[in-house]
Amino acid sequence: MRVSEYFPVWDELSAEQQNKLNSAAIWHSVKKGAMIHGGTEECLGRLLICSGQLRAYICSEEGREITLYRLFERDICLFSASCVMNNIQFTLSIEAEKDTDFRVIPPGIYRSMMEKSAPLANYTNQIMSARFSEVMWLMEQIMWKSFDRRLAEFLQEESILEETSTLTITHEKIANHMGTAREVVTRMLKYFQQEGLVVLSRGKIQITDLKKLAEYNKNEN
Amino acid sequence: MRVSEYFPVWDELSAEQQNKLNSAAIWHSVKKGAMIHGGTEECLGRLLICSGQLRAYICSEEGREITLYRLFERDICLFSASCVMNNIQFTLSIEAEKDTDFRVIPPGIYRSMMEKSAPLANYTNQIMSARFSEVMWLMEQIMWKSFDRRLAEFLQEESILEETSTLTITHEKIANHMGTAREVVTRMLKYFQQEGLVVLSRGKIQITDLKKLAEYNKNEN
Repeated sequence: MRVSEYFPVWDELSAEQQNKLNSAAIWHSVKKGAMIHGGTEECLGRLLICSGQLRAYICSEEGREITLYRLFERDICLFSASCVMNNIQFTLSIEAEKDTDFRVIPPGIYRSMMEKSAPLANYTNQIMSARFSEVMWLMEQIMWKSFDRRLAEFLQEESILEETSTLTITHEKIANHMGTAREVVTRMLKYFQQEGLVVLSRGKIQITDLKKLAEYNKNEN
Repeated sequence: MRVSEYFPVWDELSAEQQNKLNSAAIWHSVKKGAMIHGGTEECLGRLLICSGQLRAYICSEEGREITLYRLFERDICLFSASCVMNNIQFTLSIEAEKDTDFRVIPPGIYRSMMEKSAPLANYTNQIMSARFSEVMWLMEQIMWKSFDRRLAEFLQEESILEETSTLTITHEKIANHMGTAREVVTRMLKYFQQEGLVVLSRGKIQITDLKKLAEYNKNEN
């Protein structure tokens, strides 16, 4: 993918700005599991994701986690440049959930361009609004939706993302996505097994009735 | 307060833009309890708050509420113009918690100016970042902090905002701020009373030991 394809406002940038973005965007590849941002990682820049999958999450002091959103091909990752974002007073961690290829635009270059270009500033604002909306969606889920329905939805989504009905994922990892304790996940998965929605085995969860799982989530909404 | 005082980037706007903002900003006054945005309210515009206090919150279908943040004198309210914000996919409700005076900049005028002015777009982005940070702070509280500590903090804040140690507020209302059920609030307040932190009476909560309340919140952090 070309840099221009990430920016619907490309034609509103000057030729000089286009050239600058093009030449600044450097290829990076990371392996599944790599930490891209958060903790001791540096402030990398804006990422233009070409392939793979990133996960943005927050951590508690005790090491508990909750996934805020994921980023895929064609997405721009803003918070990997949080050092140049005014008024952002929280720390996201970003890790690669799959082998991921992306281009990096160094934070200073993006920022100085945004300061001069209203189209780029407004488009960045739109990206931020989209992430804000994802976090608000999650907040509503956490506040108003019971854990069983959230888990049913998580399993469905994972099954779609991984293109398989047999998920290779530990209960610990699910707990880290959902911001809860492993025991809570295990208890609910066992209940799902009793209900005939899944079959559990070591490190695997086989979804045996995707339709029922989807209905489970929908019916009680 | 003059319109210019709300915008640190005022000097970077053209004289024409300054005049346009000045003449577009119309005075409004609302009484305590007035709904400003959400539900059936129209898309009013950006609000420049001169005095008073607004509350931004979300509602569940069942009518439960949680307060996301508050706005005071000198703040700009963005989400009262959510109709012109791209990619915002959630609905905030905004109500006046005190009699409030503000100026309104109609949504279309602000938007068209932002589309041309990089300084205004970037400043708007900063305001959005600040709100995003407040929501993330709340998310962390909800996820990682126990309810007793959140309630202790809420009582402290209310006491500061209202400048009194005797709060006139129902348990129902506290529940609506905190996204929980009235019974949960009542139970915890009774526990606080046993611990000598508060004295409860009809419609009132008297904080008898603010220091202990503050420590309560801090110690167990």
